[in-house]
Amino acid sequence: MRSDEEHAAKMAKKKVAHDKIVAAKQVEKGLLIVHTGKGKGKTSAALGMVVRAVGHGMKVGVVQFVKGAMETGEAPVFRQLGVEFKPMGEGFTWDTQDRARDIATARAAWDEVKRMIADPSYRMVLADELNIVLRYDYLPLDEVLEVLRAKPEMTHVIVTGRNAPVALIEMADLVTDMTLVKHPFREQGVKAQAGVEF
Amino acid sequence: MRSDEEHAAKMAKKKVAHDKIVAAKQVEKGLLIVHTGKGKGKTSAALGMVVRAVGHGMKVGVVQFVKGAMETGEAPVFRQLGVEFKPMGEGFTWDTQDRARDIATARAAWDEVKRMIADPSYRMVLADELNIVLRYDYLPLDEVLEVLRAKPEMTHVIVTGRNAPVALIEMADLVTDMTLVKHPFREQGVKAQAGVEF
Repeated sequence: MRSDEEHAAKMAKKKVAHDKIVAAKQVEKGLLIVHTGKGKGKTSAALGMVVRAVGHGMKVGVVQFVKGAMETGEAPVFRQLGVEFKPMGEGFTWDTQDRARDIATARAAWDEVKRMIADPSYRMVLADELNIVLRYDYLPLDEVLEVLRAKPEMTHVIVTGRNAPVALIEMADLVTDMTLVKHPFREQGVKAQAGVEF
Repeated sequence: MRSDEEHAAKMAKKKVAHDKIVAAKQVEKGLLIVHTGKGKGKTSAALGMVVRAVGHGMKVGVVQFVKGAMETGEAPVFRQLGVEFKPMGEGFTWDTQDRARDIATARAAWDEVKRMIADPSYRMVLADELNIVLRYDYLPLDEVLEVLRAKPEMTHVIVTGRNAPVALIEMADLVTDMTLVKHPFREQGVKAQAGVEF
């Protein structure tokens, strides 16, 4: 183990480096944030950001493109916090088996996202699982990118879901890939747990 | 673009596979969950799970090992939801430059986590940034693993922070590595944004 003196010297150096980085960052702006990847936590991390935004008194809108058929644990809690929380999906696409219906459902959810983004009083808009409907061509990617490009400067927009389109990743300010390391569904016969998965 | 019929057939096949997977999963248990990696979203995803747990009426305790010096956006919101939310850190370790003090701070936070885990009325306990203090040897890893191994069966425990110890990853049920794809701090001179980072 390193000595206390060595440790203090190392920490002092870290502090100088860290302060320098912070001082160099001056730009304030709304971010386009993407959570993608096969791991868990894409929606959860977005919901955590929603709580932070609420804590800063921001108006927040949430539209879910897949969830909606079943009420989840989080929906009433977010409503209690004053978040406009709209589960507008009908479950995973293999539950409906009706492409025209899935497209209409995706369109209605997207109209809601567009309305929120167009209104600068929303400081954060979460389009949960939008990547999924883009993956199935239920919405034209060009139209989505156009709306995101034209968002008000101070609005944070978060897009989640596996298989984020490359063009969306290129446009985004902050992209995290949630990488699956270990998952109890796959390995241990554990079912989805309340409080963790839904 | 694939035809509607092909699409329907593909979705029907997916549904069969999906139903089969769900049917095979019967085990209900509290999970040991680790969020690690250099990307964003480790704490946010844990906080999203906390909201879900609250939505299911679960008692939840949150102990933060690094945050504490400065009040964050989320703390009052979680308290409003009835979560026991305890930021017990003093900022990043290079802010204090006092190893003995950092060890005492980590120990006090860990005692609080141990108390919550020992009490089965807590259905979820979040040890936020515990990996950071383990990384600096502020707490003995063996002691931490021993407590996690002995947790009540139905309690979910979430541990976050970069550089999760290998032995912790091996013990965990669900591990996600938040992988940095793009970060505005690094590339664009954008400062930490309220509602996103804190």
